[in-house]
Amino acid sequence: MSEQPSKVYVNGSLFDIKVPFRRVVLDELDENSNNVKLDLYDTTGEDSPGNSGITPLRQRWISNRDDTHAIDSDKTNTGGSVPPRVANKGKRPTQYGYAKSGIITPEMEFVAIREGVDVGIILEELSKGRAIIPLNINHPEAEPMIIGSRFLVKVNANIGNSSVSANIGDEVTKLHTAIQWGADTVMDLSTGADIALTRDAILRNSPVPIGTVPIYETLARVGGNPVNLSFEAFKETMIAQAMGGVDYMTIHAGLRLSHIPLTIPRVTGIVSRGGSIMATWALAHHEENFLYSNFAEICEIASTFDVTISLGDGLRPGSIADANDQAQFAELATLGELVKICRAHDVQVMVEGPGHVPINRIAENVQKEVELCDEAPFYTLGPLTTDIAPGYDHITSAIGAALIASHGTAMLCYVTPKEHLGLPNADDVKEGMIAYKIAAHAGDLSKGHLGAAQRDLALSRARFDFRWEDQFNLSLDPQKARAFHDEELPAPAAKKAHFCSMCGPKFCSMALSQRLKTADGELLKDPMAEKSAQFVDGGAEIYLSMPSKVRP
Amino acid sequence: MSEQPSKVYVNGSLFDIKVPFRRVVLDELDENSNNVKLDLYDTTGEDSPGNSGITPLRQRWISNRDDTHAIDSDKTNTGGSVPPRVANKGKRPTQYGYAKSGIITPEMEFVAIREGVDVGIILEELSKGRAIIPLNINHPEAEPMIIGSRFLVKVNANIGNSSVSANIGDEVTKLHTAIQWGADTVMDLSTGADIALTRDAILRNSPVPIGTVPIYETLARVGGNPVNLSFEAFKETMIAQAMGGVDYMTIHAGLRLSHIPLTIPRVTGIVSRGGSIMATWALAHHEENFLYSNFAEICEIASTFDVTISLGDGLRPGSIADANDQAQFAELATLGELVKICRAHDVQVMVEGPGHVPINRIAENVQKEVELCDEAPFYTLGPLTTDIAPGYDHITSAIGAALIASHGTAMLCYVTPKEHLGLPNADDVKEGMIAYKIAAHAGDLSKGHLGAAQRDLALSRARFDFRWEDQFNLSLDPQKARAFHDEELPAPAAKKAHFCSMCGPKFCSMALSQRLKTADGELLKDPMAEKSAQFVDGGAEIYLSMPSKVRP
Repeated sequence: MSEQPSKVYVNGSLFDIKVPFRRVVLDELDENSNNVKLDLYDTTGEDSPGNSGITPLRQRWISNRDDTHAIDSDKTNTGGSVPPRVANKGKRPTQYGYAKSGIITPEMEFVAIREGVDVGIILEELSKGRAIIPLNINHPEAEPMIIGSRFLVKVNANIGNSSVSANIGDEVTKLHTAIQWGADTVMDLSTGADIALTRDAILRNSPVPIGTVPIYETLARVGGNPVNLSFEAFKETMIAQAMGGVDYMTIHAGLRLSHIPLTIPRVTGIVSRGGSIMATWALAHHEENFLYSNFAEICEIASTFDVTISLGDGLRPGSIADANDQAQFAELATLGELVKICRAHDVQVMVEGPGHVPINRIAENVQKEVELCDEAPFYTLGPLTTDIAPGYDHITSAIGAALIASHGTAMLCYVTPKEHLGLPNADDVKEGMIAYKIAAHAGDLSKGHLGAAQRDLALSRARFDFRWEDQFNLSLDPQKARAFHDEELPAPAAKKAHFCSMCGPKFCSMALSQRLKTADGELLKDPMAEKSAQFVDGGAEIYLSMPSKVRP
Repeated sequence: MSEQPSKVYVNGSLFDIKVPFRRVVLDELDENSNNVKLDLYDTTGEDSPGNSGITPLRQRWISNRDDTHAIDSDKTNTGGSVPPRVANKGKRPTQYGYAKSGIITPEMEFVAIREGVDVGIILEELSKGRAIIPLNINHPEAEPMIIGSRFLVKVNANIGNSSVSANIGDEVTKLHTAIQWGADTVMDLSTGADIALTRDAILRNSPVPIGTVPIYETLARVGGNPVNLSFEAFKETMIAQAMGGVDYMTIHAGLRLSHIPLTIPRVTGIVSRGGSIMATWALAHHEENFLYSNFAEICEIASTFDVTISLGDGLRPGSIADANDQAQFAELATLGELVKICRAHDVQVMVEGPGHVPINRIAENVQKEVELCDEAPFYTLGPLTTDIAPGYDHITSAIGAALIASHGTAMLCYVTPKEHLGLPNADDVKEGMIAYKIAAHAGDLSKGHLGAAQRDLALSRARFDFRWEDQFNLSLDPQKARAFHDEELPAPAAKKAHFCSMCGPKFCSMALSQRLKTADGELLKDPMAEKSAQFVDGGAEIYLSMPSKVRP
């Protein structure tokens, strides 16, 4: 009998850490007659968190490094429930800084185990800036994860309220839905009521890194009119969010005043919210974007908390007609400049991209980003490969996401079916997540990622052997797969049946084909099969010689 | 006020034909203050068909050609309700034969208008075998459509019962669901009860070409045991189906006895139902596949009714691990031989492909098919780009389908969410169709298909202008887009609102960006914008100069 998947932990060898996996035990025996097991990457965090949030597993790792200290939280304005930490004077406690100095941290060993690679690879990719571990020192609850093109493709889920729809409990539910279905990071894009309280509730309950767009809260603080924004107001917000524990922040510093006229010929102008806010400010004042002018100071703040900067693409195309235009690529070149400034401050950085891009123009986005931004991890929204399917943009964009991932994008920002129409509810979050886990995994397979194909192999073997329960447990959504199968063949015996309702027992190709396979002895006696015998003798059973249990 | 989309007809100039389109009238005025209109490709057929099936619009076109005659239906065994026609002695009434002789048919003008191209292009592509118009002389109800890489990418929907689940009315409902959502052809893959009656009900009600896999009915006729199959039994079935009006037939003639041993190392063996049936027969008898041995005779029959042959890929890969293997490509080379035999008999032919293929191995499938099969139209199932998402294989495969379409695949065979788990019901048919219309359209955009981008452009303009009703009417699923929008902003006034519930009125990037766009006069006074003025003077409004009304 196959068991339900359970959580297992792998201990570190360098540090006292335990890395979670979801173990699937199969109804298939290995050469020692033990059940074959497959340990899958797991983003769900603690099984039964307490009411006041989840365990701050990194607290000791951070304090042990002795380069930060807790400050009196009465003097801060974080909205947070734990005393925040800041760097000691002259210190930059960032994973990038550590990696450049050759220091291996518990965070690095954690992601090495999670990804199934040697920690040396983690150190190398981090130190070159080709990968990041977004972890604020004030978000000790988060389990480390790495974003970089050599690692598993990651998925971000956006949640957050708007002025039309706002409830803190709903957002925590969306967080849980997102991580249940595999979200690697979550962005809180709230713009409605109680932004700080909502964010704190999310942070204290989140085992994954949390991102924000601080200009949204800044705008709320100045009364909603972009013209009233200022760098001072932004800085105040950024510091408060950093003290609260935000792991990465999207900063639209690349949209320069001189780029704005390039958007005039566009069909859909500026569709990034942050981009249009900054463009409005810049035009109103006829001054350079203050996030660009003050970028070095932003980096100083980020380095104090190990906040990762996600360079926002304020000029991403909002329609097929606007893809890869002058405005988009002019901003991308500026983002390349800003990457260098981040690195000079030991700040971890990734670069945001796409939007709406037709299939034939997707590869160019990755090529340009790699070249202009010196291989900083690329983090793209979709792209949506057509504009004509509102209500199904999780699909229009999963197509583009899978393709851009196959070209090297490190993290995909999901799109839900509600895109362009409204805010996602928990069901939409799930639909968006599944579509993007598919896209990310298709990207991993395409890149030949070590280990990614093991799950497909295990599932397909289960399918060929009619091990239905194994098939369900290995799938992205076991409940749905089981429910679809049960619609027409609900009997428990059917879970072992050598057919399904697609073809019925007489016509099942898998069953017919299984009989072929067992008949190969007789087949080879035939003279017409001589050539095949040669192939078979030459090691034809290539897949059976692969280890069934490979992590992740 | 925007009107509901309505059906319009465009008359032929060479023939007395009328070609249907779905007209969307927009809340946008052209330079003459008329509402902009967009006429979309329409597959839905007659609005209110009678009880005994739809109008046989091609009946006169066929009889006028004087190369076929009706036969006494009492002497036949078609299960059909109209007297069948056959070719006159020595005649091959196929669209390919006509095209090679330089004869333009009403069918050719019909598809030229539908595709928005000159009929000369149709004639050229047909005569070179790079495109087909699958239309049996006994299915006069069908509206002509063309399948070829220079034309709009088409989508086929599979329906049909199995022994576990069978009801004729359900299948006609699935047919209607499929064409409502844009199916260009429908395959009836029934293997359960009443195969002939079900097929006839579908044919008499279908405005799109109908395909079958005749070996399924043949197998039912011989009692369900593949070993009992014979070419005689197959021929009898094929002729009966051809007399009933089946427009194209999948024939697994490319799976040769010598290919079977190549499948032994596979993870999932032979997953094509037709393929495993023929492999079982061939192994049991130790004889060459009778469909291969008798292929010339099969072509003779096909040419008598203008049945298009769809060369089945009995060895398509059923898992990521099996993609692009020796077995698959050995069969593809044989399909190339068979294409030549079809053409020698004036028979229209396309080639079936993919299954499960990772993204990085998709392009090779198209390249090999073009080369080995002399540019015959490629017709692929998906491909599914990962095995791990049963319940969501419409998405895993829409990714691969969009990509393979962008490389030149002419028709995509849809996959529904029930793939691998059960037979699709009407809801699943809709979900599969929408996912595949997205994939096909994304492919069209990627290929730069003339006119495909017009719908995206119109929708994105409507989006930027907050013309919500236009946005809904231009989308693939207007009801769903409207329902999602209404969940949070149901008031009719919100349909004109300059924001939606995603961001609310204060934070809407489109609204902010619109204000930017109207501020361009002032913007250009600024010295920093001189360079942009240059761009704007240089014809920046490129999209506004494109005609809004382009067919299709």
